[in-house]
Amino acid sequence: MPFERYRAFPPVDLPDRTWPSQTITQAPRWLSTDLRDGNQALIDPMSPARKMKMFDLLVKMGYKEIEVGFPAASETDYSFVRQLIEGDRIPDDVTISVLTQAREDLIERSVQSLVGVPRANIHLYNAVAPLFRRVVFRASKDEIKDIAVRGTNAVMKNVESYLDATVIGYEYSPEIFTATELPFSAEVCEAVTDVWQPEDGREIILNLPATVEMSTPNVYADQIEWFSRQLTRREHTVISLHPHNDRGTAVAATELAMMAGADRVEGCLFGHGERTGNVCLVTLGMNLFSQGIDPQIDFSDIDEVRRTVEYCTQLPVHPRHPYAGDLVYTAFSGSHQDAIKKGLEDLERQAGEQGVPVSQLPWEAPYLPIDPHDVGRTYEAVIRVNSQSGKGGVAYVLKNEHKLDLPRRAQIEFSRVIQERTDAEGGEMTAEAIWEVFRAEYLDREAPLQLDSVHTSSAAGEKDRLTVNVHVDGEVRTLEGTGNGPIAAFVDAVNGLEVAQERGWDVRVLDYAEHALSAGGDAYAAAYVECAVGDQVLWGVGVDPNIVTASLKAVISAVNRA
Amino acid sequence: MPFERYRAFPPVDLPDRTWPSQTITQAPRWLSTDLRDGNQALIDPMSPARKMKMFDLLVKMGYKEIEVGFPAASETDYSFVRQLIEGDRIPDDVTISVLTQAREDLIERSVQSLVGVPRANIHLYNAVAPLFRRVVFRASKDEIKDIAVRGTNAVMKNVESYLDATVIGYEYSPEIFTATELPFSAEVCEAVTDVWQPEDGREIILNLPATVEMSTPNVYADQIEWFSRQLTRREHTVISLHPHNDRGTAVAATELAMMAGADRVEGCLFGHGERTGNVCLVTLGMNLFSQGIDPQIDFSDIDEVRRTVEYCTQLPVHPRHPYAGDLVYTAFSGSHQDAIKKGLEDLERQAGEQGVPVSQLPWEAPYLPIDPHDVGRTYEAVIRVNSQSGKGGVAYVLKNEHKLDLPRRAQIEFSRVIQERTDAEGGEMTAEAIWEVFRAEYLDREAPLQLDSVHTSSAAGEKDRLTVNVHVDGEVRTLEGTGNGPIAAFVDAVNGLEVAQERGWDVRVLDYAEHALSAGGDAYAAAYVECAVGDQVLWGVGVDPNIVTASLKAVISAVNRA
Repeated sequence: MPFERYRAFPPVDLPDRTWPSQTITQAPRWLSTDLRDGNQALIDPMSPARKMKMFDLLVKMGYKEIEVGFPAASETDYSFVRQLIEGDRIPDDVTISVLTQAREDLIERSVQSLVGVPRANIHLYNAVAPLFRRVVFRASKDEIKDIAVRGTNAVMKNVESYLDATVIGYEYSPEIFTATELPFSAEVCEAVTDVWQPEDGREIILNLPATVEMSTPNVYADQIEWFSRQLTRREHTVISLHPHNDRGTAVAATELAMMAGADRVEGCLFGHGERTGNVCLVTLGMNLFSQGIDPQIDFSDIDEVRRTVEYCTQLPVHPRHPYAGDLVYTAFSGSHQDAIKKGLEDLERQAGEQGVPVSQLPWEAPYLPIDPHDVGRTYEAVIRVNSQSGKGGVAYVLKNEHKLDLPRRAQIEFSRVIQERTDAEGGEMTAEAIWEVFRAEYLDREAPLQLDSVHTSSAAGEKDRLTVNVHVDGEVRTLEGTGNGPIAAFVDAVNGLEVAQERGWDVRVLDYAEHALSAGGDAYAAAYVECAVGDQVLWGVGVDPNIVTASLKAVISAVNRA
Repeated sequence: MPFERYRAFPPVDLPDRTWPSQTITQAPRWLSTDLRDGNQALIDPMSPARKMKMFDLLVKMGYKEIEVGFPAASETDYSFVRQLIEGDRIPDDVTISVLTQAREDLIERSVQSLVGVPRANIHLYNAVAPLFRRVVFRASKDEIKDIAVRGTNAVMKNVESYLDATVIGYEYSPEIFTATELPFSAEVCEAVTDVWQPEDGREIILNLPATVEMSTPNVYADQIEWFSRQLTRREHTVISLHPHNDRGTAVAATELAMMAGADRVEGCLFGHGERTGNVCLVTLGMNLFSQGIDPQIDFSDIDEVRRTVEYCTQLPVHPRHPYAGDLVYTAFSGSHQDAIKKGLEDLERQAGEQGVPVSQLPWEAPYLPIDPHDVGRTYEAVIRVNSQSGKGGVAYVLKNEHKLDLPRRAQIEFSRVIQERTDAEGGEMTAEAIWEVFRAEYLDREAPLQLDSVHTSSAAGEKDRLTVNVHVDGEVRTLEGTGNGPIAAFVDAVNGLEVAQERGWDVRVLDYAEHALSAGGDAYAAAYVECAVGDQVLWGVGVDPNIVTASLKAVISAVNRA
């Protein structure tokens, strides 16, 4: 790899930086650029219908600043802005913005696109980075600064001409901020601010784009802290971030830069945008949520958000995308499943003790940074079973879906049955498939023994007596036995069978557990019996409304499995 | 959103932290856990064949430490380890490792899986985090520490019994490091180190997993720096990172923790692993590469890496995944395309001046953090055209694919033709589709005029005379004209046609450019002529081996378009 072609990004000399000791305590102002930066980088940019669906989604989620397009560069964008305004689609508390390059004709057309809107922001940018000055524009620093100043003047002039009924805000971006000498970015921004003349009630938004992410995220934070300290009118300035994800650290860069003093963040849902995308607004918002900070955005039905974005962008959200991917609340590994199961049980115990639902308890569960319920997911998908899963996952599925609470050694036994299947066949086993295997293994075996009817009698001081009709290899036999309780009596009876002696069964009960499957008098019971049958040790399971019958069925299940 | 259920992660009190002023200057030791943590979280864990393909890929890319499985937990993993060893698949400079929980029986089986391997690492973990102590293991701190100590002893005992011919290294992970009181993690690690007794030539690897990512990435760096300072045997200790991506900041956490002193990084290609995945080794390695640091890993055919991983994991790499996604070297927006085009031209100019290929120049191009060639991509996919594209992209495609270097105003004219199409039809336009539109628009029009044959004569001091046979609406006509050069003479001839007067053509040439399409005497030439035809101004394009014919065809192209 020809790494010598590249050079390290120069660090910012800021030994007295303060951001590493800060924490984030509130949500920033959000701007969604899904309809602009996000849209321009789609293989198939959104149709007007898809754009409207995206706009409505953003409004519904709670975004108050939405960049809706680049109207001077695209007819589609222009007419979409008009459609929003003329169709009265913009709620009172939402401010749309439009992006424009710093050229007089484009500024005029951008301003014209906004006629009739009660409030809007105009977002002007020009490239100030050295490579752009040298190669793209062949212009000196002064000429570049002049483009920004003249552009700002042009915005103000055109706003005066066309938009006397509109409250107009102004945003300026020195492009590519991350690749520009910091003092020059600051100089251009000061010059632009001199023109706009912010004051109380008239802010200026200085947006500092990591148009291309060029270094570790701490450097962006340093750049932001450095910049923030230089500003002469910090109190009237909104410092805005616009990070891209070229190095996979856009979320981090945004968070550290917020710690460094930024007020506002521009990004896209699920990180769409040029190349690797803009910073993901869902991840940022949910990261705040998971720290007990109100994100100001509604992610309570994250799958609906995801479906809408996938429809509008025609691009998928990855199964491992934080908070929203298919697999992110899922544990396949046995030890993870076991821990999650215990964690959820502990939460239920606490909820029971305090008489509140789990959803009102402080959240703390192994491997799950947030409660999936809080984003509209269920626990069902949390534990999924494949060849890497152990007893925990399988036991969880049986308990969660079928109320069967297997004793620990029974869990181990059954999870081996499942693991043989997953090892052999590969792939995931669904809850249904696990249930089918469980039934076939424990509940549905009818040979060699099948229970027909049972009569028991017990009297104080005597052993239990039991008479039972059993199909033995299809033929009805009546058995009698005695013992301390019906199970012992039944085992006694079974051991008396010819077939038991022929096959060397010699059944002994080693462990036993039983529980109700639901509440009420007609509830079913599940019985689990661990039996030694000859030299094998195995579990049987029986389910029946009658608790005695359930346990006898469990013994038969074990014998039939032998 | 019930954000009150969550609490902020407590920061580390480390005001004298040094990492924010550090930079990364070399690659860490890498460990790939694709076959273990990556594999256990797949919907369909890898078959033996897929595992071998993954192992071979990792070796080929240059990974020297590879965690190959959890042999005591899975038969498939056990037999895969045996297959590697018995099939002699492990190169001399590669160390495999196996993970085990700290239980005597599992440790023994894990050690047994390694019999016959020349060198290997055993990786032991136990949960030390408070939630796990309380809910999962119901054990005190001392009991938990004892599990780690006894586990380490058991590893040493079993290694002595089974692996006398193997060089064994040891790795210990306090799980979940990020959620554990730092002093307790350090205490357990010290106790484990006391047992292992590292010395020169006998290191201990302390792996500090962010099993669940729980805070902003600076906190992980603080934790690592704090931990590193506590160690009594730092010089014999390898501090290893194992970050997960729950908050989307695993890459950042890893980088900041490397700045904080970590030596080694565990992760997976493209970030597979439980839930949101492990940190992505591709992104980390390429981030180093892009800063001029040798990643020690070969990413020069990134698409091959991606295909193999997609095959093995049966999960996709997202189109926006840094460095490897389909869209990450692509610019759809007009202004980006324009800048990239100029940047690449500037590199070619520099290459020409210095007499070296572009691939040997320091890389610097707008919007492209690295040269796509360095990872085996071409420039063709860099510029793709949709309704958000401007002249730059269209011009780039024509130049790159068809050597046609359109004059700037011709670019603008043609990009409008393309934009009408993309606005109307949506979607991306392929290079082929753009070429078809270009041909239909400029090259293939044969009515009303079509050139048949040309004769020119010129003599010193006289105007050029030209005789030309032209099909006019299908009928052959012979025209004569004079002028300063053949184009002027031809325009003169055309303006003399009846049809020109009927239709008010009054052709005037406004601008003209011509260039060869390839080298050599039989090369084709392309001519571009901007004409006023009546009250329209439009461009015509002609391609012909004869430079005169090419320019006359260009005039005809413009007239026919009028």
